[in-house]
Amino acid sequence: MADLLEPGSRIGIVGGGQLGKMLAVAASQLGFATHVFAPEVDPIAGQVSDVVTTAGYDDTDALVRFARSVDVMTFEFENVPVEAAEVLESEGVVRPGSRALATAQDRLVEKTFVRDLGLRTAPFAPVDDDHDVAAAVEQIGVPGILKTRRDGYDGQAQRRITELGQAAPAWDDLARRPCIYEGFVDFTCEISVIGARGIDGRIVCFEPGENVHREGILRTTTVPSTVGTAARREAVAAAERVLTAFDYVGVIGVELFVVDDGLVVNELAPRVHNSGHWTQDGCVIDQFEQHVRAIAGWPLGDGARHSDVTMTNLIGEDVTDLDGFRADPRSGIHLYGKRELRPGRKMGHVNHVRPRSD
Amino acid sequence: MADLLEPGSRIGIVGGGQLGKMLAVAASQLGFATHVFAPEVDPIAGQVSDVVTTAGYDDTDALVRFARSVDVMTFEFENVPVEAAEVLESEGVVRPGSRALATAQDRLVEKTFVRDLGLRTAPFAPVDDDHDVAAAVEQIGVPGILKTRRDGYDGQAQRRITELGQAAPAWDDLARRPCIYEGFVDFTCEISVIGARGIDGRIVCFEPGENVHREGILRTTTVPSTVGTAARREAVAAAERVLTAFDYVGVIGVELFVVDDGLVVNELAPRVHNSGHWTQDGCVIDQFEQHVRAIAGWPLGDGARHSDVTMTNLIGEDVTDLDGFRADPRSGIHLYGKRELRPGRKMGHVNHVRPRSD
Repeated sequence: MADLLEPGSRIGIVGGGQLGKMLAVAASQLGFATHVFAPEVDPIAGQVSDVVTTAGYDDTDALVRFARSVDVMTFEFENVPVEAAEVLESEGVVRPGSRALATAQDRLVEKTFVRDLGLRTAPFAPVDDDHDVAAAVEQIGVPGILKTRRDGYDGQAQRRITELGQAAPAWDDLARRPCIYEGFVDFTCEISVIGARGIDGRIVCFEPGENVHREGILRTTTVPSTVGTAARREAVAAAERVLTAFDYVGVIGVELFVVDDGLVVNELAPRVHNSGHWTQDGCVIDQFEQHVRAIAGWPLGDGARHSDVTMTNLIGEDVTDLDGFRADPRSGIHLYGKRELRPGRKMGHVNHVRPRSD
Repeated sequence: MADLLEPGSRIGIVGGGQLGKMLAVAASQLGFATHVFAPEVDPIAGQVSDVVTTAGYDDTDALVRFARSVDVMTFEFENVPVEAAEVLESEGVVRPGSRALATAQDRLVEKTFVRDLGLRTAPFAPVDDDHDVAAAVEQIGVPGILKTRRDGYDGQAQRRITELGQAAPAWDDLARRPCIYEGFVDFTCEISVIGARGIDGRIVCFEPGENVHREGILRTTTVPSTVGTAARREAVAAAERVLTAFDYVGVIGVELFVVDDGLVVNELAPRVHNSGHWTQDGCVIDQFEQHVRAIAGWPLGDGARHSDVTMTNLIGEDVTDLDGFRADPRSGIHLYGKRELRPGRKMGHVNHVRPRSD
């Protein structure tokens, strides 16, 4: 393992949000120094990191200096421009690499990639012009969802289509950007697998958590999930296939729908993931430490779960009413230190922990 | 609870070592900002805190500015001069207060305090002059240990006395500073209780861990301990008595010897404690978060243990041989980021975690 980073080495984190903050804490715990690169002034990840660079993703000089100042780099969110990622890759080691990033940034490329791996996706079709809009809806049927191929998350930049006539106005509404039309999946629940792959190719997955979304935003993740052993195994196998195909190093989040006759892959997130926050209070080695171990070339933790957990996101105003969470002596409270409260903004999360039931 | 600090408030940490670092991480996780005050340049706690003041404990102006810049203050080690603590108390809220600090700084005052609470201590006598040296050893007997009343930890500043003739030279060797002579306690094992008291007076203790020292330095702490239920209860009751007597707010470490017919209190540490590091990977709410909750006026966590843990300190060169720990997928590794390796220096610790056995 020539690539193994010793404590004292410096880890570069691209992006300054809560995922970067929790990665910086994990890196610090393992004895690494951290350097955060983010466009925003005073990023919250900077509160717990050694060095912060404030610069845009188009600032090549700053990217090069950042890359040369660290021993390995990683991303805390996937919408970093691929051009920036490629600059970093030309100057240093980036884990996971830009290919996973590029794939996850484009819903059409992502869906195609997943399908080509032999995994199920929702039926989908590209929408690039007026003809495509109607053709896609006719081919896939209604209900369905029209989504921009790039950008937009947590329910933004998508429109639900329940009849053909809504399609063209919806596309106008999305500024006629390149889109993907996805058939509606009638699922019983959504689960996600947080998987990790080391530089030796070894894969360790946390057990699938069961997610509840509201208004397109993750509200809760619960372990153990209500899905059976076979579905859990299949979900983990899907994550393993994705990790191997990317020759991935680090943690990935794979969201899946559970349907009557199996699983449908919904989305890939090439980074630590909100639905993996339960691991902080449910596992000895959580997703943040697991990611740092992977990118530092360390052996991975085993991902074993010691407790049952329900993770609840604190969205917007939720964070102003902490008394109930504070009064619960078995709730791990994680607040991100964001100064500005906005509706829909993730302000923190709480892990309610119970003795392991299974 | 008028004193309850809301997230965004600032916590001042006096001292810049690993305990301060882990406190800063816990504070950050709960949404608090942190300000570290330490005499040394580039303190390791500064790696994860928002603001650092580098100044001596005799710098009254710096102490006053620090006190006024934060909402509550706490100590990460107990050898801060009481005069400095009193300056801070005159300018702001210090938890726990300077009384616990002053008591723990002087072995004679501490032992007297503990005995006056009706708790057992080793037999002890003060040594202030040549007459005392002989009188103390004759009164208490041999073997015993001559210790300076102040300063010195981890086995420094103490001499073992096995015959009367060694006493006077030993006192010379300790620079004839004010000392305490303690009778030797023939114990079967040493345990410690990490207890916490909130501003409402509620007390929560973690279960006693069993400690192994070598050359005066803590090597391992294991939970569950080998001592029986009655001794565990008695140990927790002793910690509760100490916490109440001090009208304490925060976490305290109470070290006890287990002897044939009960428990003997060895030492108080008015802060988070090395023997409580197992809680990081054995409890939902660990000693660091518990301390921050207490000083912020939040309700305490319940201290429940979900797993068995053996905490092993990495002393000096230990930290250069991490492969065994890294390869263990159930070991939580905690490195402090200290740049300079010195023999006897605490460089990190590892929590080896097993499923709960009891």
